[in-house]
Amino acid sequence: MELWLTSLITETPQEGYELAIKMARMGVKYTQPDAEIRDKLRPKYANDPDSLTMASQVVAINFQTVAAANNYWK
Amino acid sequence: MELWLTSLITETPQEGYELAIKMARMGVKYTQPDAEIRDKLRPKYANDPDSLTMASQVVAINFQTVAAANNYWK
Amino acid sequence: MELWLTSLITETPQEGYELAIKMARMGVKYTQPDAEIRDKLRPKYANDPDSLTMASQVVAINFQTVAAANNYWK
Amino acid sequence: MELWLTSLITETPQEGYELAIKMARMGVKYTQPDAEIRDKLRPKYANDPDSLTMASQVVAINFQTVAAANNYWK
Amino acid sequence: MELWLTSLITETPQEGYELAIKMARMGVKYTQPDAEIRDKLRPKYANDPDSLTMASQVVAINFQTVAAANNYWK
Amino acid sequence: MELWLTSLITETPQEGYELAIKMARMGVKYTQPDAEIRDKLRPKYANDPDSLTMASQVVAINFQTVAAANNYWK
Repeated sequence: MELWLTSLITETPQEGYELAIKMARMGVKYTQPDAEIRDKLRPKYANDPDSLTMASQVVAINFQTVAAANNYWK
Repeated sequence: MELWLTSLITETPQEGYELAIKMARMGVKYTQPDAEIRDKLRPKYANDPDSLTMASQVVAINFQTVAAANNYWK
Repeated sequence: MELWLTSLITETPQEGYELAIKMARMGVKYTQPDAEIRDKLRPKYANDPDSLTMASQVVAINFQTVAAANNYWK
Repeated sequence: MELWLTSLITETPQEGYELAIKMARMGVKYTQPDAEIRDKLRPKYANDPDSLTMASQVVAINFQTVAAANNYWK
Repeated sequence: MELWLTSLITETPQEGYELAIKMARMGVKYTQPDAEIRDKLRPKYANDPDSLTMASQVVAINFQTVAAANNYWK
Repeated sequence: MELWLTSLITETPQEGYELAIKMARMGVKYTQPDAEIRDKLRPKYANDPDSLTMASQVVAINFQTVAAANNYWK
């Protein structure tokens, strides 16, 4: 896997949230490394409300980690 | 994505809870940026009790982060 | 939304647990504000064991926050 | 609801785990207060492996809270 | 229930992870105490990828508790 | 089980994330030790978007533990 996570520190909460999204997506990529397959799956979950909620939940869990790492940007 | 998360600090617990809701919805929006599609999906999950419970759970996870950031408004 | 969450501090663990229940329900209410629809959905999830377990889980997550806010009532 | 949660402090980790089980069950009871209905639902989830895993998960989340309250019985 | 959880302290991270597995299984056992039934359910979830992921998740949650109790074996 | 988890400390966040993946997979392996069966299940969950999201979630939970153990690599 290429280098993609060098630090949990971000300048702003929003950048931290976007890092949490990246982490959620990388969790998928490690399990399904084939980009073509991931692209084919996208319409399915992007149009299923429960799939979208589940995706938002993984981001929320990763954001807890990023926010703690940044001392909540205080 | 527009600027939407500049701080985790809120004046009251309820504002913090509402920020957690916003974060949960933004998690969906990053995955499904098309507002029209999101609006079409709304009736489906807003009338499914398990979908509503799942949505409440994502808020609960985000609220943990917001509450910690605000030192629980103590 | 009316004012409903002014503090995470409660006198006893049980009141804290009941606040966590309130928070879980408010998470649903923000997504489905129509009380009549929520009432219609109630029999469905109140008679489904997995729905009940999921509801208990959201309470457990909210209770983590409330308990931390109250320093575990020590 | 009767008084059932007066303290998160227990003498041993196992008592703490059993309190976490009690908390998980009370989360169900608040949503479905009818004991007869809960008894009828029991065979369904007690024979479904995923339901049992979900139940164990709610206990795990509550145990995190109880363990922290007891400073991990150190 | 027999005595099974006397301490969260383990000598190594791996022993801690294995304690977390034990805790996840005990969560199931408290809900379904009949060993024969649990054995019958095993093939079902041991051959279902989502059931296996859910089981791994409960272990992950319990491991958070065990790792904190051991100060992360630092 | 062979020795596989001797420390939660890693040099970089990405190595920590990859350890979290390893932990998630070991959680599966303890429940389903037969590598041939696990290989047969792989195509099923690697092509199901919700299964992939669930897998990413278990990684996220384990990463919380690893990140805390490493003091967030600060």
